[in-house]
Amino acid sequence: MNQLFDQLKTQPTATVRAQIRACAYAGHTAGLGKNMLQANLAILPASHALDFMRYCQRNPKPCPLVGVSDTGNPRMTTLGHDIDIRTDIPAYYVYRDGMRAETVTDITGLWQDDFVAFALGCSFTFEHALEAAGIPVWHVENNTTVPMFASDIPTVPAGPFGGATVVSMRAIPDARVDEVIEISKRFPMAHGAPLHVGDAAEIGIADINAPDWGDPAPVPSGTTPMFWACGVTPQVAIMRARLPICITHKPGAMLITDVADDAETTILTA
Amino acid sequence: MNQLFDQLKTQPTATVRAQIRACAYAGHTAGLGKNMLQANLAILPASHALDFMRYCQRNPKPCPLVGVSDTGNPRMTTLGHDIDIRTDIPAYYVYRDGMRAETVTDITGLWQDDFVAFALGCSFTFEHALEAAGIPVWHVENNTTVPMFASDIPTVPAGPFGGATVVSMRAIPDARVDEVIEISKRFPMAHGAPLHVGDAAEIGIADINAPDWGDPAPVPSGTTPMFWACGVTPQVAIMRARLPICITHKPGAMLITDVADDAETTILTA
Repeated sequence: MNQLFDQLKTQPTATVRAQIRACAYAGHTAGLGKNMLQANLAILPASHALDFMRYCQRNPKPCPLVGVSDTGNPRMTTLGHDIDIRTDIPAYYVYRDGMRAETVTDITGLWQDDFVAFALGCSFTFEHALEAAGIPVWHVENNTTVPMFASDIPTVPAGPFGGATVVSMRAIPDARVDEVIEISKRFPMAHGAPLHVGDAAEIGIADINAPDWGDPAPVPSGTTPMFWACGVTPQVAIMRARLPICITHKPGAMLITDVADDAETTILTA
Repeated sequence: MNQLFDQLKTQPTATVRAQIRACAYAGHTAGLGKNMLQANLAILPASHALDFMRYCQRNPKPCPLVGVSDTGNPRMTTLGHDIDIRTDIPAYYVYRDGMRAETVTDITGLWQDDFVAFALGCSFTFEHALEAAGIPVWHVENNTTVPMFASDIPTVPAGPFGGATVVSMRAIPDARVDEVIEISKRFPMAHGAPLHVGDAAEIGIADINAPDWGDPAPVPSGTTPMFWACGVTPQVAIMRARLPICITHKPGAMLITDVADDAETTILTA
């Protein structure tokens, strides 16, 4: 898998998605499809799609909506030239009645005529911009998963969707905090500016060394912990809604789109 | 009406909305609720709400979605502290089977349990920013309505919603075109950067002196016509869909929100 990953790193998005579609690659997508927007996935029955769209609209920082399929249509035409959402994600989680039931690499057999697929922006986009500005991000340099925490910041509910905002933490050199705020603010479709900067306890995080998801990351002296709204938030909202069935990507294994990650909108034109 | 308008210009949004709610003021809102986000309105039955939301998501420049009500609930809680969408807009157009049927100042008697209200960003926001930068905008200075044209740029369809993108035109001094692009790009919830700069014929406009909506505006030598995606686009899409009933604001008579027009998101917090 690692050898294939190294080969895919230099390939265009169509080649990467072809390998994923063939189930030849089922790993994480950080560093693949360079400079292209990557997205979180949520697939729900149409009966809950309007409420879920409202939930995304009301919580644009954790849930920046970058694409929505037609009901029953697995093609995401505004995000790419040939995206089939049933096959083009490396790995999927299937939830039944709010509980994670299966992990699969293809959902063709599970697809329903009433399914609606939602793609939501992810933090890879602004992490690329931080890298480009020469700002070190520990979990990227150490090849671990960013630490994520359930905060006490509530989301704005819609129908059965609600709950706490999940945040991801990056410890940034004190002198570069303002610059990092400005850079991330430029990417509203990738969580935007941080929700909180500084003391973790102020947003209900008891132990910064014990993340609820992902791996711990140090906060050395001379750095400030910065907290961004995180794409795990809608996954928690979906589990909480206890839908009979819903499907998400496996965290880290994202949809790679054909939209440039610095495009003005996430809608592919021509 | 003009005397009341002059009084309202210096009043806070709550006072302005109270006068509108009482049907004491039914005119345009340009220049009222200074520095607060104003929004276009579309109210549709829930049966078409998911498709309309998809239409907005797929066409973020003409249709930047800034708020959505719960089904049957006329309160827009994410946009203001006490907004009742049935009364807080100066004037409404009621469409039946795709044709404009009535103009009213209160829709309490027309409200249905299955209605969903959508608020979409409008160009007043970036016009304020142009004014602040000392860039002259002819229709503002001459108190006319911006000229609007049906372009040949298609929107991305969703269900029964589709059709051409409507654009608004502002003639900008040649030397300031780049600056105006940069300023308007900062307001993705107010149509963002222009769709087209220069020759009107290139986007299917036959006569720049004969707008399809609004008033003509001159394009003096030394200025360049700039065309932005316009909030009339969704009104055209709605008429084209021939829904049994739908309600919009009367153009120019917008919803005044409690969200600052330079806020990072359009969702009111606290």
